[in-house]
Amino acid sequence: MTQRRELVDRALEHYIPKESKYPYIIHQAMRYSVFAGGKRLRPILTLAAAEAVGGNPESVLFAACAIELIHTYSLIHDDLPSMDNDDFRRNKPTNHKIFGENIAILAGDALLTLAFEVLSQPENLKTFKAETLLSAIHEISLAAGTLGMIGGQVMDILSEGKRDLDPKTLEYIHTHKTGKLLLASLRVGALLANATAEQLKAITEYGTCIGLCFQIVDDILDVEGTTEETGKDVRSDAAREKATYPALYGLEESKKLAQELAKKAQQALVSFGESAQPLRELGEFIVSRTY
Amino acid sequence: MTQRRELVDRALEHYIPKESKYPYIIHQAMRYSVFAGGKRLRPILTLAAAEAVGGNPESVLFAACAIELIHTYSLIHDDLPSMDNDDFRRNKPTNHKIFGENIAILAGDALLTLAFEVLSQPENLKTFKAETLLSAIHEISLAAGTLGMIGGQVMDILSEGKRDLDPKTLEYIHTHKTGKLLLASLRVGALLANATAEQLKAITEYGTCIGLCFQIVDDILDVEGTTEETGKDVRSDAAREKATYPALYGLEESKKLAQELAKKAQQALVSFGESAQPLRELGEFIVSRTY
Repeated sequence: MTQRRELVDRALEHYIPKESKYPYIIHQAMRYSVFAGGKRLRPILTLAAAEAVGGNPESVLFAACAIELIHTYSLIHDDLPSMDNDDFRRNKPTNHKIFGENIAILAGDALLTLAFEVLSQPENLKTFKAETLLSAIHEISLAAGTLGMIGGQVMDILSEGKRDLDPKTLEYIHTHKTGKLLLASLRVGALLANATAEQLKAITEYGTCIGLCFQIVDDILDVEGTTEETGKDVRSDAAREKATYPALYGLEESKKLAQELAKKAQQALVSFGESAQPLRELGEFIVSRTY
Repeated sequence: MTQRRELVDRALEHYIPKESKYPYIIHQAMRYSVFAGGKRLRPILTLAAAEAVGGNPESVLFAACAIELIHTYSLIHDDLPSMDNDDFRRNKPTNHKIFGENIAILAGDALLTLAFEVLSQPENLKTFKAETLLSAIHEISLAAGTLGMIGGQVMDILSEGKRDLDPKTLEYIHTHKTGKLLLASLRVGALLANATAEQLKAITEYGTCIGLCFQIVDDILDVEGTTEETGKDVRSDAAREKATYPALYGLEESKKLAQELAKKAQQALVSFGESAQPLRELGEFIVSRTY
């Protein structure tokens, strides 16, 4: 994972305008959050999905980066005072704490816009068919929009203060707020690597399970984790009276559910060979992570 | 123009999820601002540019709408308390006044995301080559990003309280904040309609002139216009000590400059025939408008 993370970091370094590029402050703000020490889980999933279906992981780096840019924009906007009002993320002050709310909003906007610039850059045509690139763009825009990530964030905001939320809405929030983009990171990797319909179906099943598992583990870490390990405020869900899996089902039941989802994700990969090994390891990481 | 505006409105109606689509509030917020009575200048320019180079204006409606979605997102975010803090636009309360800051930020994000969804939708492949669609996406993402519209907005924010701004920075703000997307709306219309290199060059010249002209007229209307006509707070530039053309060059000189740019824009179309008539009329509208 470390090696893949460095690969992604180098590619991101290439795609984001330098801090010396005018107007300086916006590129500084974009880079501040993108290079704040993220796990790079989504882009690494993109590379692993491409590899699993027999593709070259390095060829899909551009799409992996685009997804990380979208993920980072969503974190910057989520942390804003009018949203979650978080002061720290990954042990560092959040973007608006350093650059002010106005620049933080624009840095988020800029990262989202840059994602589509990277996805549509002419260089990609050297390796991929235009039709394939277009469907990757469509897949990502749907996953990031109101029927995906933004929809989940909207319901998350509306549900604050409702710890007794109905299970259906809680599942909607979890599968949409983080699940949809996580799933897209896998599907796009597979799509670009010319996955067969059967392979894509298996990757989709894996991604659906692992996406929900990821968010349940997030909820658990908010209860059991430490700020040192997770890099963010813990116990914040309870403080905000947020609906979470532990709040609704209890800690033990939530852990059991996460384990079951992780197992189901592994089962989805049963027909894949050695090339899916990185994907299997990522599945293990997601359920057992402490940060 | 009225007919074209209705055409654009109908297409926008088609592309934005209904208010009855879950999560309701985000689609309500998106629609509130998109259907707040905008002039639809940018999408109408897209149609006119396609027509000018011999294309079918209706075929580029999807791209025209995508640009209007991006324009609308930029207005919602510009109006936020941490940005321009505007309470009214087009004689209606601004988005965050109705839906709250958090939903307004997400509505902006969602409109930007939707623009790329519309640009990459599979239906477009019935009429356009995937390569052409991809280059339209790239053109728009560049125009909307930190080297375009967002860059202009960043410098506009940083320049508040500096009425004696240097002319170079003022021109940067004006050509980037509104100019780049306006230019892209024309270039994309021409590109999709298979403009020749020469035609695209002329459209680019027209768009560059008309883009700056548009913003200078905006500055003038802030001094001379009324809230009734313009639909927004007037004298707000002076109140915020914003750098404007009238502040820097005086009202008469600014009017002269706007006229010169409008004339230069018309000259760029000299080699075009009857098909460029709508584009010529739009040029006249932009310099003589009172709203």
